[in-house]
Amino acid sequence: MKSYREEIWFNCKKRIDFICITEQVGEILKKSEIKEGLCLVNSMHISSSVFINDNESGLHKDFEKWLEKLAPYEPISQYRHNDTGEDNADSHLKRTIMGREVVVAITKGELDFGLWEEIFYGEFDGLRKKRVLVKIIGE
Amino acid sequence: MKSYREEIWFNCKKRIDFICITEQVGEILKKSEIKEGLCLVNSMHISSSVFINDNESGLHKDFEKWLEKLAPYEPISQYRHNDTGEDNADSHLKRTIMGREVVVAITKGELDFGLWEEIFYGEFDGLRKKRVLVKIIGE
Amino acid sequence: MKSYREEIWFNCKKRIDFICITEQVGEILKKSEIKEGLCLVNSMHISSSVFINDNESGLHKDFEKWLEKLAPYEPISQYRHNDTGEDNADSHLKRTIMGREVVVAITKGELDFGLWEEIFYGEFDGLRKKRVLVKIIGE
Repeated sequence: MKSYREEIWFNCKKRIDFICITEQVGEILKKSEIKEGLCLVNSMHISSSVFINDNESGLHKDFEKWLEKLAPYEPISQYRHNDTGEDNADSHLKRTIMGREVVVAITKGELDFGLWEEIFYGEFDGLRKKRVLVKIIGE
Repeated sequence: MKSYREEIWFNCKKRIDFICITEQVGEILKKSEIKEGLCLVNSMHISSSVFINDNESGLHKDFEKWLEKLAPYEPISQYRHNDTGEDNADSHLKRTIMGREVVVAITKGELDFGLWEEIFYGEFDGLRKKRVLVKIIGE
Repeated sequence: MKSYREEIWFNCKKRIDFICITEQVGEILKKSEIKEGLCLVNSMHISSSVFINDNESGLHKDFEKWLEKLAPYEPISQYRHNDTGEDNADSHLKRTIMGREVVVAITKGELDFGLWEEIFYGEFDGLRKKRVLVKIIGE
């Protein structure tokens, strides 16, 4: 069994952002030389996500508006987490909806995806350096 | 390390549906001849889900009503994704709540499940052909 | 390829509770002697979760209040699942939001975590014995 590990770093200029990382994960997969196996891609932070969905800008606007409705940023005082001096309780909730990680099958050296599947980094508390872990195991 | 891959196809006659696929995944596991490992089961589409919960028809009605409350289909015009001519933005949101994938432990050649765990395909934009990927790695 | 399996048992005295299990999972990892691989941690029940977030008590209060808003316990009669004599339909929905499982990379014999990542068991229908499965594969 082989394994390979690499990080992808981000520094989003917006508080909330969605960044397509399919190509970067595919390049890491090539470097791994793994042909059959599983690829874990996870945020290493608790206020951001990795998820799979459509690379369509209208949908990303829908996600942002929808998450704001389900887990609003304001009023900041509604969250006990923000009593610690933080203002990012909502980002922990938003990330929970969108998910921490994806696991992708590797088949014949490729990400084994359906037609519209793309991997995204979802940032909910940006303006600082953050990273995603890619861990691949297989043969 | 061994690996095995198979697809399960669907053509739901309803827009929203939940289909138990535990038995089909178990049959694929037998064909794989893998005794210890991990089994990934994921939707290959971005408007449907794979998830684990209870095989109880009342609960499935609750899921459908609850998802409609959290991510309503109508009005279609509330979603920017639907400006592309689609009407399925809500199905992308519903699938996000229910999840894209599950990872199941394989132990002694069986799906290593608790008493009530069953795997479901959750369709949120049916009336067309769709598929689920089963990828098993192990020994 | 090596594999290792162990269960963690709980008997929460509250209906809803969040219990940090990072240390227990780390001890199981040591026993496995696996240095590179993937670690699956999943609830074996359909009314509880395993998830990764912040070990901060204010945030856990926020999670509890937020889940109660998104999937309220009462009125019990709003859920068809409860027609079976159960009163826990809401716990199936809450667990869906929080997730069934996490997959964690194993690197150099350690859980490959970012700074604030901690694994939690999330109970939404406590006062009974329940368990979590830890399955590790790798080398």
